[in-house]
Amino acid sequence: MAITVKKFGGTSVGDISRIRNVAQLIKNHLESQADSKVVVVVSAMSGETNKLTALAKSCVNSPNPREMDVLLSSGEQVTIALLAMALIDIGVPARSLLAQQAKISTDRKHTNAQIVDIDTTKVEQILAANEVPVVAGFQGINDEGDLTTLGRGGSDITAVALAAALKAEACYIYTDVKGVYSCDPRICKSARPLRFVCHEEMLEMASLGAKVLHTRSVYFAMRYNVPLVVLSTFEPDQETWIVKEEELMEKPVVTGVTYRLDEAKITVYRMPASISSLNHVFQVLSRENIFVDMITQTGFVGDRTNISFTVPDEDSSRALALMESVLEELDAESSSLDRDIAKVSVVGIGMRYNTGVAADMFKALASENIDVQMISTSEIKISVVIPRKYCEIAVRTLHEAFIDVSPEISIES
Amino acid sequence: MAITVKKFGGTSVGDISRIRNVAQLIKNHLESQADSKVVVVVSAMSGETNKLTALAKSCVNSPNPREMDVLLSSGEQVTIALLAMALIDIGVPARSLLAQQAKISTDRKHTNAQIVDIDTTKVEQILAANEVPVVAGFQGINDEGDLTTLGRGGSDITAVALAAALKAEACYIYTDVKGVYSCDPRICKSARPLRFVCHEEMLEMASLGAKVLHTRSVYFAMRYNVPLVVLSTFEPDQETWIVKEEELMEKPVVTGVTYRLDEAKITVYRMPASISSLNHVFQVLSRENIFVDMITQTGFVGDRTNISFTVPDEDSSRALALMESVLEELDAESSSLDRDIAKVSVVGIGMRYNTGVAADMFKALASENIDVQMISTSEIKISVVIPRKYCEIAVRTLHEAFIDVSPEISIES
Repeated sequence: MAITVKKFGGTSVGDISRIRNVAQLIKNHLESQADSKVVVVVSAMSGETNKLTALAKSCVNSPNPREMDVLLSSGEQVTIALLAMALIDIGVPARSLLAQQAKISTDRKHTNAQIVDIDTTKVEQILAANEVPVVAGFQGINDEGDLTTLGRGGSDITAVALAAALKAEACYIYTDVKGVYSCDPRICKSARPLRFVCHEEMLEMASLGAKVLHTRSVYFAMRYNVPLVVLSTFEPDQETWIVKEEELMEKPVVTGVTYRLDEAKITVYRMPASISSLNHVFQVLSRENIFVDMITQTGFVGDRTNISFTVPDEDSSRALALMESVLEELDAESSSLDRDIAKVSVVGIGMRYNTGVAADMFKALASENIDVQMISTSEIKISVVIPRKYCEIAVRTLHEAFIDVSPEISIES
Repeated sequence: MAITVKKFGGTSVGDISRIRNVAQLIKNHLESQADSKVVVVVSAMSGETNKLTALAKSCVNSPNPREMDVLLSSGEQVTIALLAMALIDIGVPARSLLAQQAKISTDRKHTNAQIVDIDTTKVEQILAANEVPVVAGFQGINDEGDLTTLGRGGSDITAVALAAALKAEACYIYTDVKGVYSCDPRICKSARPLRFVCHEEMLEMASLGAKVLHTRSVYFAMRYNVPLVVLSTFEPDQETWIVKEEELMEKPVVTGVTYRLDEAKITVYRMPASISSLNHVFQVLSRENIFVDMITQTGFVGDRTNISFTVPDEDSSRALALMESVLEELDAESSSLDRDIAKVSVVGIGMRYNTGVAADMFKALASENIDVQMISTSEIKISVVIPRKYCEIAVRTLHEAFIDVSPEISIES
């Protein structure tokens, strides 16, 4: 029994005509592939979760998390019912399943729960009866029988977890973009659709700013070895497969160029160049739950050094204030905040086997006179911090240098 | 442990400020009555159920009933979460419960299910922990683990059933009217609030047009001997207690005057006056699920008779067409439909012990020259069908004749 899991995001089920469109898409799939079985996972209609959140915030300042989960999970409940109706209406037997029916068990961490187990008995019964199970994404049930929600990207996680539990052939994530691109097509005309990327690349690209998939669902897919397919509900002709590295036919040195604009840089000047001072800085930030991304030390003068690090822009004023408050303890001179930065990255599994990517990257940026303020690298990516005004030109230049020069890979499926 | 169940209808939780108002009302109750426990039942916010129904109808012509129940029950889910948040926010520990958590078991009849059992273990645990259980009305769970809904008046039924299962002292139905009146205050200025009515009277009044409570919840309260209290959320100073007949301090001959305008009268002329012909007429209607209320035979001429009956106005055209289609089989002359009728009734438990009410009723109507077209009686009510244009004057005349003359009963509580 070849099972595929198909997950439709909020935009894909954003209104009644789109829900009917999704039903037709499922029908077409079942008719064209005689022995295939489909499990459907859906999000709330686009805007609903925000609307419910606003309702809660207008009621109380800090909504109780348990009750927030009861509230939010009503959004997916509406969609599964409507989609199941629409399927039944066009002659596809279907049955909606809430978290407690699909037996999606989570821990007790309300609003950000983790799936701990899925008992697929009921889903498999429904499949065996030739019906389409339509499962509410984003929600789970904890060991007290209470509703939980999975946090950001939750419906993707539901879909991947179900695909893993059912040993599905693949998990299709239907969204409003045509798969994953080598670059943001809005700023780079030569951006090309990627036919295949491996989980590690997708993880880097997701955390570096490619917004198609949330990192948690990619982790899950990697851990349980579920092939993920990203495609558009509205133009489903183009697909990106996210697979194991071994399954990649080619391993380009650079697969994608990404950027993000939501970080800010803080610099602490002329503090003692000791590990205890460094430790002090990051302890202070950690205690306040401020996530630090890149860190560099520059400008040694005697036993003094400057240290720069990036934090989420939304936390940057708070982070600066913290630094100001400990300047004296640190025996540092001053601190500053620069919000006008961009982080631009190149990602590619082929970097594991190729040296000189950093050199090529600096050469390309230098050709446009773009100053690099910070650098960080991993096995398969290089990120640089540059002045924000150069972001677009840097992205285009890197795309040209690494990707436009390599041949397109043809679809093999 | 003195438990009361408090049920708040859609208007009472119609927006965020009203939800906060209900939370405050519950807090005040708990503070003023130290050893009391409250179980809360809520409906969907007013308009929500209609909105969800419209959504389903815009998706498919005839929504699957199982999925309809999944869709509709999301409405109450939103309200329990918001009310629980609002309670917690003002320092009242609370916990929302969906049907599967409150263990409200029903049969499998989707969209119109009957409660078959309530396991109160969880509700009692929550009460024992000094928390307020906030239970979703209108919804249940069947033996397949599927959501069901209880149909019209469903949240009232949830509340009464919970009160019965918990052996609560009373079930308070908070609504947008100030209890039950002797007559519709909109058309009769001297209408008086009723302090006490018995279940039987309330049943008659509900089915005769007093819209405060649905007959099913009154039946339930009568069957399980739950004292019901009807009052306004917005002006809760005035209450109507619906109690056992034995508990009534006084038994007025006429407690209330009611009317309904949603029936129509059909007459079949000059059909054979035989039981088999009569049977044929009502078999035809029954097969088409048309509910017949009053029936009278008039105008015998030889072995021929005219027969009139009332049906819901919405079914009246269909009923007329059915009669037209069987005229020949019936050997009847013709049939006609009169939609310009009103049914006016007087109700009172005291009729059991008093004769002459019908005579007084006809005398009062005759004094205004109102023709009575049909009559039906039960042990505690008399209903007449009259031309619709005389409805208001008939109601006022009967109220004057039977109720304005009797002393008001003072509150005893």
